[in-house]
Amino acid sequence: MKICSQLEVSRRQLLQMGLVTTAATLVPTGVESLFPPESLAQGQDPLPSWNDGAAKQAILNFVRVTTSSSSGHFVPAAERLACFDQDGTTWVEQPIYTQVVYCLNRVPDLVKAKPELANEEPFKTVMSGDRAAMAKLPTPDLYEILGATLTGMTVDTFHDRVQQWITTARDPRWRRLYTELAYQPMLEVMSYFRANGFRTYFVTGGGQDFVRAYCEKVYGVPLEQVVGTMGGGITFGYDAMGNPILTKDPMLLLNDDNAGKPEGIHLMIGRIPHAAFGNSIGDREMLEDTKSGYGERLAMLLLHDDKDREYAYGPVLGLPDSKVGTFTQALYDEAKAKGWPVISMKRDWKRIFAFET
Amino acid sequence: MKICSQLEVSRRQLLQMGLVTTAATLVPTGVESLFPPESLAQGQDPLPSWNDGAAKQAILNFVRVTTSSSSGHFVPAAERLACFDQDGTTWVEQPIYTQVVYCLNRVPDLVKAKPELANEEPFKTVMSGDRAAMAKLPTPDLYEILGATLTGMTVDTFHDRVQQWITTARDPRWRRLYTELAYQPMLEVMSYFRANGFRTYFVTGGGQDFVRAYCEKVYGVPLEQVVGTMGGGITFGYDAMGNPILTKDPMLLLNDDNAGKPEGIHLMIGRIPHAAFGNSIGDREMLEDTKSGYGERLAMLLLHDDKDREYAYGPVLGLPDSKVGTFTQALYDEAKAKGWPVISMKRDWKRIFAFET
Repeated sequence: MKICSQLEVSRRQLLQMGLVTTAATLVPTGVESLFPPESLAQGQDPLPSWNDGAAKQAILNFVRVTTSSSSGHFVPAAERLACFDQDGTTWVEQPIYTQVVYCLNRVPDLVKAKPELANEEPFKTVMSGDRAAMAKLPTPDLYEILGATLTGMTVDTFHDRVQQWITTARDPRWRRLYTELAYQPMLEVMSYFRANGFRTYFVTGGGQDFVRAYCEKVYGVPLEQVVGTMGGGITFGYDAMGNPILTKDPMLLLNDDNAGKPEGIHLMIGRIPHAAFGNSIGDREMLEDTKSGYGERLAMLLLHDDKDREYAYGPVLGLPDSKVGTFTQALYDEAKAKGWPVISMKRDWKRIFAFET
Repeated sequence: MKICSQLEVSRRQLLQMGLVTTAATLVPTGVESLFPPESLAQGQDPLPSWNDGAAKQAILNFVRVTTSSSSGHFVPAAERLACFDQDGTTWVEQPIYTQVVYCLNRVPDLVKAKPELANEEPFKTVMSGDRAAMAKLPTPDLYEILGATLTGMTVDTFHDRVQQWITTARDPRWRRLYTELAYQPMLEVMSYFRANGFRTYFVTGGGQDFVRAYCEKVYGVPLEQVVGTMGGGITFGYDAMGNPILTKDPMLLLNDDNAGKPEGIHLMIGRIPHAAFGNSIGDREMLEDTKSGYGERLAMLLLHDDKDREYAYGPVLGLPDSKVGTFTQALYDEAKAKGWPVISMKRDWKRIFAFET
């Protein structure tokens, strides 16, 4: 996910966007119970939501050989690093990225604060609720909405707003909090890596500060382990009382997608990861970079081929094309040629969400 | 330290620059023995190179109250974060920043690779060894030297070059490796913080990739805990064999000095530190930001007032003025007014370097 590709959604997707609702009442998130404890009893299956198969075996094998001193592929604890794309890899990204839904949901409050916007495009169209008209908004107008809702406030204000939204807004299909749409099998993988001394990082096209508002509670990933798009620059200054404040400004520091992912990993971490998980062409360079490192490395892709339980999109293998989370045949062919295991959501995952019985 | 202020050295300092020598033979660094083990025996003084006094007590008190659950100022382990400026705070920065010495020392190799540079300014002047002429090089020429020696190669090549240099080049005054000029009292502080569950970060105007070449061995700071100036952008690409490579490019992403320090801390970490140490006006905003956080916070400044054992510069308190590591009276007054303890190198430190007997 990147700010640009967020805007390359189809009109159909923008139409579906209008279906999004925000729950009026604050409900307990319950997200802390989403992931299992970091240590596992001997003999316990660390990946109970996975069916047996090549994908599950690839993960188990990788962790075994990199943490066993006798394997010849042992990785010292300080270097154990696993990177995860977020949208479409660890939670649902269809029909539209959660962060874009947040931006659209923010428009009413924006207009409340600046009533003159009610008669200005593109805010007028978003306020009208006219889905067909919203679907026709040109890309620069969508950029304006992202800029207006993601920048121009202190980092604390932004953090509070996202946290308030993410604990109340619900996806229209499942009527669940967006954080409940985290993939249980991937939460298990992240816990399994951590239980084996790996630090788990997000490397996401999503906004860094957006993801930081929930990554610890939902995914067990600490704030400092989010490498994201720095869509807003950060400016130091003082408030009216002379207290230091940090403000989010419209300036693109790093577009953390495609080549931006390994670039961001170098800037923020300075090490090549030993394992990386993605699901789209935006993750290709991160996976290539991961495999370029010395010794045993794991690069995996998640294929969304389960229309009934989640979504099915490609266009790989004849699946419907999608501008969100595009998985091309060329990426698939590269994965096959280079030995990157592809996870089939349909075949490899016993269950997708924690709330499934 | 920042790329800009590196260039604001006086002509006198540029003259002294020429004194720098590079040892011809590789010598063992011995740096790993510079810092004590991370756990301390009960009752052992964690800061043996410090004289008793307000500065030492401030550090001991801060760690005690933030790690004691009954103090009312307890900080959970995940949030324990201490940030350290590097140049002039944890190692010698006079008469000129070590990284600039590296850049000047690189020029002969640069000319060897591109012989046409031998007749081009500013390289011609650097090659001449004419210190007076070098001292007169205008700022854009110095920028050209920094750009030519810090960018235009892969991150791996740069890392190897710095590592080779830093394990052989010697400071002209002490005839010691630059890494041996790390301040023993500050190495003790960093170890003491880590032994108490704090993660220690560098927040330095120095180049991020430069510092990463030695920070683990010399300071016990892992690569991913360096927030530095990103003076070169990072570009992902492929080599002739089709293997992924990351190249350093001339593009300023973040000038990690002054306001850039808290901005960089937010971008790279996302938390306000609980403790921060600096020594110059470039650290002011980091210290202000640190103290703006909720609860107990520690902000400290090191004053270089020991001409005999190291250097003395200000211009605070009538010490000689310096463009490198400037400590103004205004900064001193702010420290006194806000209760930031000022460390006197002369009074507070029993010894400065590990090699002192």
